[in-house]
Amino acid sequence: ARTGVPEVIYCEGKSIPQIQGIINRMSEHHSNILATRATWEVFEAIEKIGLECQYHEQARIMVANPRPVEQVGNIAVVSAGTSDIPVAEEAAVTAETLGNHVNRIYDVGVAGIHRLLNVCDDLFEANVSVVVAGMEGALASVVGGLVSCPVIGVPTSVGYGASFGGVAALLSMLNSCASGVSVVNIDNGFGAGYQASLINKIAVNKAPPE
Amino acid sequence: ARTGVPEVIYCEGKSIPQIQGIINRMSEHHSNILATRATWEVFEAIEKIGLECQYHEQARIMVANPRPVEQVGNIAVVSAGTSDIPVAEEAAVTAETLGNHVNRIYDVGVAGIHRLLNVCDDLFEANVSVVVAGMEGALASVVGGLVSCPVIGVPTSVGYGASFGGVAALLSMLNSCASGVSVVNIDNGFGAGYQASLINKIAVNKAPPE
Amino acid sequence: ARTGVPEVIYCEGKSIPQIQGIINRMSEHHSNILATRATWEVFEAIEKIGLECQYHEQARIMVANPRPVEQVGNIAVVSAGTSDIPVAEEAAVTAETLGNHVNRIYDVGVAGIHRLLNVCDDLFEANVSVVVAGMEGALASVVGGLVSCPVIGVPTSVGYGASFGGVAALLSMLNSCASGVSVVNIDNGFGAGYQASLINKIAVNKAPPE
Amino acid sequence: ARTGVPEVIYCEGKSIPQIQGIINRMSEHHSNILATRATWEVFEAIEKIGLECQYHEQARIMVANPRPVEQVGNIAVVSAGTSDIPVAEEAAVTAETLGNHVNRIYDVGVAGIHRLLNVCDDLFEANVSVVVAGMEGALASVVGGLVSCPVIGVPTSVGYGASFGGVAALLSMLNSCASGVSVVNIDNGFGAGYQASLINKIAVNKAPPE
Amino acid sequence: ARTGVPEVIYCEGKSIPQIQGIINRMSEHHSNILATRATWEVFEAIEKIGLECQYHEQARIMVANPRPVEQVGNIAVVSAGTSDIPVAEEAAVTAETLGNHVNRIYDVGVAGIHRLLNVCDDLFEANVSVVVAGMEGALASVVGGLVSCPVIGVPTSVGYGASFGGVAALLSMLNSCASGVSVVNIDNGFGAGYQASLINKIAVNKAPPE
Amino acid sequence: ARTGVPEVIYCEGKSIPQIQGIINRMSEHHSNILATRATWEVFEAIEKIGLECQYHEQARIMVANPRPVEQVGNIAVVSAGTSDIPVAEEAAVTAETLGNHVNRIYDVGVAGIHRLLNVCDDLFEANVSVVVAGMEGALASVVGGLVSCPVIGVPTSVGYGASFGGVAALLSMLNSCASGVSVVNIDNGFGAGYQASLINKIAVNKAPPE
Amino acid sequence: ARTGVPEVIYCEGKSIPQIQGIINRMSEHHSNILATRATWEVFEAIEKIGLECQYHEQARIMVANPRPVEQVGNIAVVSAGTSDIPVAEEAAVTAETLGNHVNRIYDVGVAGIHRLLNVCDDLFEANVSVVVAGMEGALASVVGGLVSCPVIGVPTSVGYGASFGGVAALLSMLNSCASGVSVVNIDNGFGAGYQASLINKIAVNKAPPE
Amino acid sequence: ARTGVPEVIYCEGKSIPQIQGIINRMSEHHSNILATRATWEVFEAIEKIGLECQYHEQARIMVANPRPVEQVGNIAVVSAGTSDIPVAEEAAVTAETLGNHVNRIYDVGVAGIHRLLNVCDDLFEANVSVVVAGMEGALASVVGGLVSCPVIGVPTSVGYGASFGGVAALLSMLNSCASGVSVVNIDNGFGAGYQASLINKIAVNKAPPE
Ligand SMILES: Nc1ncnc2c1ncn2[C@@H]1O[C@H](COP(=O)(O)O)[C@@H](O)[C@H]1O
Ligand SMILES: Nc1ncnc2c1ncn2[C@@H]1O[C@H](COP(=O)(O)O)[C@@H](O)[C@H]1O
Ligand SMILES: Nc1ncnc2c1ncn2[C@@H]1O[C@H](COP(=O)(O)O)[C@@H](O)[C@H]1O
Ligand SMILES: Nc1ncnc2c1ncn2[C@@H]1O[C@H](COP(=O)(O)O)[C@@H](O)[C@H]1O
Ligand SMILES: [Mg+2]
Ligand SMILES: [Mg+2]
Ligand SMILES: [Mg+2]
Ligand SMILES: [Mg+2]
Ligand SMILES: [Mg+2]
Ligand SMILES: [Mg+2]
Ligand SMILES: [Mg+2]
Ligand SMILES: [Mg+2]
Repeated sequence: ARTGVPEVIYCEGKSIPQIQGIINRMSEHHSNILATRATWEVFEAIEKIGLECQYHEQARIMVANPRPVEQVGNIAVVSAGTSDIPVAEEAAVTAETLGNHVNRIYDVGVAGIHRLLNVCDDLFEANVSVVVAGMEGALASVVGGLVSCPVIGVPTSVGYGASFGGVAALLSMLNSCASGVSVVNIDNGFGAGYQASLINKIAVNKAPPE
Repeated sequence: ARTGVPEVIYCEGKSIPQIQGIINRMSEHHSNILATRATWEVFEAIEKIGLECQYHEQARIMVANPRPVEQVGNIAVVSAGTSDIPVAEEAAVTAETLGNHVNRIYDVGVAGIHRLLNVCDDLFEANVSVVVAGMEGALASVVGGLVSCPVIGVPTSVGYGASFGGVAALLSMLNSCASGVSVVNIDNGFGAGYQASLINKIAVNKAPPE
Repeated sequence: ARTGVPEVIYCEGKSIPQIQGIINRMSEHHSNILATRATWEVFEAIEKIGLECQYHEQARIMVANPRPVEQVGNIAVVSAGTSDIPVAEEAAVTAETLGNHVNRIYDVGVAGIHRLLNVCDDLFEANVSVVVAGMEGALASVVGGLVSCPVIGVPTSVGYGASFGGVAALLSMLNSCASGVSVVNIDNGFGAGYQASLINKIAVNKAPPE
Repeated sequence: ARTGVPEVIYCEGKSIPQIQGIINRMSEHHSNILATRATWEVFEAIEKIGLECQYHEQARIMVANPRPVEQVGNIAVVSAGTSDIPVAEEAAVTAETLGNHVNRIYDVGVAGIHRLLNVCDDLFEANVSVVVAGMEGALASVVGGLVSCPVIGVPTSVGYGASFGGVAALLSMLNSCASGVSVVNIDNGFGAGYQASLINKIAVNKAPPE
Repeated sequence: ARTGVPEVIYCEGKSIPQIQGIINRMSEHHSNILATRATWEVFEAIEKIGLECQYHEQARIMVANPRPVEQVGNIAVVSAGTSDIPVAEEAAVTAETLGNHVNRIYDVGVAGIHRLLNVCDDLFEANVSVVVAGMEGALASVVGGLVSCPVIGVPTSVGYGASFGGVAALLSMLNSCASGVSVVNIDNGFGAGYQASLINKIAVNKAPPE
Repeated sequence: ARTGVPEVIYCEGKSIPQIQGIINRMSEHHSNILATRATWEVFEAIEKIGLECQYHEQARIMVANPRPVEQVGNIAVVSAGTSDIPVAEEAAVTAETLGNHVNRIYDVGVAGIHRLLNVCDDLFEANVSVVVAGMEGALASVVGGLVSCPVIGVPTSVGYGASFGGVAALLSMLNSCASGVSVVNIDNGFGAGYQASLINKIAVNKAPPE
Repeated sequence: ARTGVPEVIYCEGKSIPQIQGIINRMSEHHSNILATRATWEVFEAIEKIGLECQYHEQARIMVANPRPVEQVGNIAVVSAGTSDIPVAEEAAVTAETLGNHVNRIYDVGVAGIHRLLNVCDDLFEANVSVVVAGMEGALASVVGGLVSCPVIGVPTSVGYGASFGGVAALLSMLNSCASGVSVVNIDNGFGAGYQASLINKIAVNKAPPE
Repeated sequence: ARTGVPEVIYCEGKSIPQIQGIINRMSEHHSNILATRATWEVFEAIEKIGLECQYHEQARIMVANPRPVEQVGNIAVVSAGTSDIPVAEEAAVTAETLGNHVNRIYDVGVAGIHRLLNVCDDLFEANVSVVVAGMEGALASVVGGLVSCPVIGVPTSVGYGASFGGVAALLSMLNSCASGVSVVNIDNGFGAGYQASLINKIAVNKAPPE
């Protein structure tokens, strides 16, 4: 990525010293460094080396060297159940840090379709929707049928038994009978938030972030 | 099964002479014999041996030795797309032959949720619903969330690529976030129609069919 | 769900404060709140906030704000092995809390078919049977062949190696050669108990619970 | 294999000239050559080169250079449904050609458990049982629980949808809760008949066939 | 979809009369009706009922009631091998029919990376890229790393053995180490072309098509 | 099982009190009770309630109420690598407790085929062979090709990556090109030892154990 | 590929005119063009446009514009069963066309280990071995254990049932307990022959072919 | 393996005393014994019994009884991301201990293709390349397209969700569109390093190591 745009580090499977080293190097020339899948321990380790940073606990995202960014346009982040919120937050915080306005529409699972229908106006205002759902992942199809903007589905690993760690939701979204739906990896809130940002920035007539 | 109730034969993988033999034997003591996955060729072969029979082409069901049955109660058979109709018809004709009133509610896929909401009253009147859907199979969850009667999901093999011959719809239905949904095998319209009949007959205070 | 009917919360993956908050809110207008997959820790946390509750240890179900309910009709909960009992109990306690009479028929695996045949009379009296089995899951087919009421199969994750966490039992039940069998997700005792309740309530001429 | 014992050729995927060549060579020193998965076309091609042979149509087995063999001991070949008969016959004819007495016990699927119980005495007389079943494959467990001789399960590819070409039956048999059950490949009637022969020959105090 | 926007029909699994009926009905109020997975036979059947239509053979798309549309913006459709072209064409023709300018960049597989690098300027000019690849599907990651616009990956079923009908390419794209990549179903050129159109239309400051 | 023959309890997933209760009851009428997958903790708990027992650590088998049994016949237990020994021991100790003479032939993996060929004489003396192997499980085929007695393959979960917890070895054994090989579940040393005992007892002209 | 080295075209999924066009273009500057998965129809079509070519029927390879090449070094191509020969020939003919001496060692499956041991001297003389096997694919491990040169395993789709189109052999080879074994895609004789050529050419101190 | 060449022990799943015993025995006649998947605990246990040894922490390899070896030829070990380094180091240290010169080319993932193109000269100098990559594993194809030496792909288990523990990378590499690529098991750095050594030793005209 070029100067002035956020750098990203994926923390899972990296040691604290590795993370400290990478962020330290990045912070010389960059601000708003996104550290995804970051634990409290990571947060404290970065503070210890004297870098300013914010921790978004639910999203498991740490932003190092934060600077204020204008949040423009409109990305809807829609989620089905309480347990899907961490992934939804990963998408939302990623998008916000990249300078997008995010509208969180949570707890609108398809088993209670009226809750979803009640927020249709919010859905219609978005330039792009991120739909986060585990179990049967049906929400992506229903939202895709309601809206005419692009929909990015994020299957989550929420569920048990034949959910197979998110495979049921992944397959469901890939086979969506609604047009305009594409999909990212299971639990990949970051990837969805990032692509949503690319699309939303197009809509607000700004250069894409990367 | 005991005297007076329909006998069933699954034709796939049986030769014409085998099917003729089996149905001939059955027809000595039984009427309304259900032959599922029956082709026109099967139908003609049964007529040739002098047995009366009716052929339901879309359902691929032949009823040998048919006799009129009163159709009681109310079973909703709901389906998503045009290509799911053969499986839906297998469920519907099975249930009708077993003496149930069936309400067909077709082409109400979740990508156009309003068509489904428009038929809610029909759904509410059923004692039990059979929901037939391929691709992402989300319809079972949405119907399950709307109604308070038991829902029997039938995933179909309609789709391509990552639908894996109905696996996507099957997993989707097994992981339904709506309570009150159980599932039968991929494309098993007969099994759903049969179980729906057992439940509907309970509701109309008759002895169950078998 | 509407006023007067039980509310349900699935505890797995929720924090203690989240569960406390949800149940506290629910308990303002509801009684007999079902908390499934609840640990002792959850039970103690709910007692600590001053709510009355009962803990069914084997079923891993906590009932908050319990009130006596008449238990009507007859649901058979049949299970194969000792290790399947927690899932069977989840089904049984769910159904009892929802106001159904439950007949527990445990330890009647197919490898000792005579124990099962000895309890046939009990099986014949039920309006609906829940069959809980892991490993090869054959019990659902055998029970389905014996009874003429609807059978709801619950595959369990009991087993090792090629049981693949319940997949062997799940596939076995989906392919049951007995008519009248439908299936819920692996280990989903709650879902089976809930659907059995819907069917049993039909039989006792009461409005379905939801 | 050494002189005096049957030779075997698996015909699937071999051309007629290849099969003619192989059997011609074999027939110089061997009799009772087993050609499995043989079509009528194969049979006619072998007759054309002047070799005596018998064709077992259902078993899809051709025996070239046949000579009478005493059929000793007792192998039960048990099968569930009509569609499983070709595989059962492959096992039975293999065993008979190898000099074993075979007792065919067909059409005793678990959905009608009483038919199976009625033939218990036949089952008890066998030195070894071959159990052939598709769909959910539960028959192997039930037979395994009834008898105290070794049971060899043969899952078949009979079924559709989530039977996955015999995988459901295979997994079911591998996870059998009955002791004394081992399993061969899907549709491998030959392999089961061959191993059953080895075991039965032990029982009749003869040298094993190979 | 509302008046003035294209209607779509998926032909696979529908009979000629069904397709004729559906398109006939649609053509009363709509133009540029997209019939995907259409054969020559379908084309001729539609001409026979007196409707004007165009057939795009490689794309297997028929456009009924065609009218000229301005093709605006810039969508890159990138593909790896010769065998991937039908899916790429499905995406390209879909997008063109929906009023987008499409730049076809074919035969730039990753095994010859320099061919891809030579067309970088073309890639940089697109508002959105559709990347079509079978076998190992690596092209989506390489393109995703080069461009800063959104990338929609379309895995194809091209390959054999462990490509498992497109699963290898699908998994590859879902796990892309490049940010900004989302994925549609195997061989779903239509879905990618449709979503690319939604994004491209945002870029050209027009109302999205649906 | 009837009086005089060993009873078996599978300890995995049972609590110490459950195991104590079950073994206590069994020990009233039975000796040589086999407790498989038993930990040291289980052993100590059984000693604590005053029952005599032996613990076979590698086999993870505890024998409660042990009595001397004559060990007759000859069962070869063959294994590939060091890590497969626990499963091989489960088979061997099971067979010994059931009254069979066992010949352990360990560490003869196919990558060093000469070690295996050196023990051919031992292999030839057995009435039945149990072959235990993980990773690619090729040993079952090689042994099956060498011997003319029945071979029972036990795939183990030893391996990593594409061994998929024993699936690679399981599939390998199911597809064995050697005749006379059947297979039990992954890691199921008990099942193999049990069936080997049934076969070996036939050979020594004794009644089978169950 | 650069001037002087063979060009390759994979024919599966290409039309006759497409293949004619590609080979025509290639033949302007290249000789010994390899067309893999070529049918007789392809061969005749190339002859028709006036190009010299040879057809290797078993290998399904056509060599267009053939010129004599010196065949140097020593590559062993080892195969298990008769049905594996087409894939073995694809490897052998590929390697020969690329200028390597090939030693074909066929029909040495592991079920008859002595046939393999009898050809050990041939195996020891090769610079690299290609091992082709279907079903359980054990041959790669046994050969890998015997030789000290690199071994390239080619799983084939030969088999049925749980061979899953070559998956059993593929997994077996990937988990080989012998060191020095790597694997190519199922049925990919070309890929193995090509890599074997690269290695053999190193051994004969020539520049690698590409 | 014969005298003078390294012995190898795979530590995972072996107890400390087992490892001590095996290495102690080996060290009587061998030097440079490779212990893979060795923990610090293993290292300390070997030092405690008085054997000299070196521990390569990232590679998780311990070399017991080390002696200096000349490192000849040129093996490139290429890896995609930081998390793939342990597997890459396993390959590199294995190859170095076996007497090969290794050129480590790390952190050249395909999402930043220019980093890879910048090191092309290094790639061209190698006799053989080991390519280590997780997630989508595309690096093997890109490197395979660039170089004309043999490429050994090592898929790693790095990733989450639909990476399925390395399956996505494995399938990607098996389906590589580049010629000259073969593959070893997921995370099998040792196997790749070993085979690379065999090939590199050919190139330097030395006897292969085993
Ligand atoms: N949560 C996440 N899931 C998937 N990819 C991520 C995630 N967070 C960061 N990434 C990607 O990982 C890259 C950084 O990986 P690394 O260099 O290993 O830290 C970034 O460029 C992102 O594309
Ligand atoms: N054990 C269980 N398994 C599956 N679904 C459950 C279970 N317990 C509760 N549910 C469902 O989960 C819903 C509550 O989910 P939640 O709002 O996440 O607590 C209920 O409406 C039930 O339908
Ligand atoms: N139906 C069958 N299924 C599995 N294996 C078989 C079958 N028939 C024969 N075989 C085996 O295949 C071998 C002969 O294979 P082939 O030499 O390819 O004809 C015999 O030795 C048998 O072990
Ligand atoms: N039988 C085969 N299996 C796998 N790959 C092949 C085969 N034959 C040729 N190839 C590869 O396919 C490429 C040609 O593909 P194409 O340009 O589609 O004809 C060659 O460069 C080879 O790398
Ligand atoms: Mg839409
Ligand atoms: Mg409901
Ligand atoms: Mg029944
Ligand atoms: Mg038994
Ligand atoms: Mg990018
Ligand atoms: Mg043998
Ligand atoms: Mg070797
Ligand atoms: Mg190359």
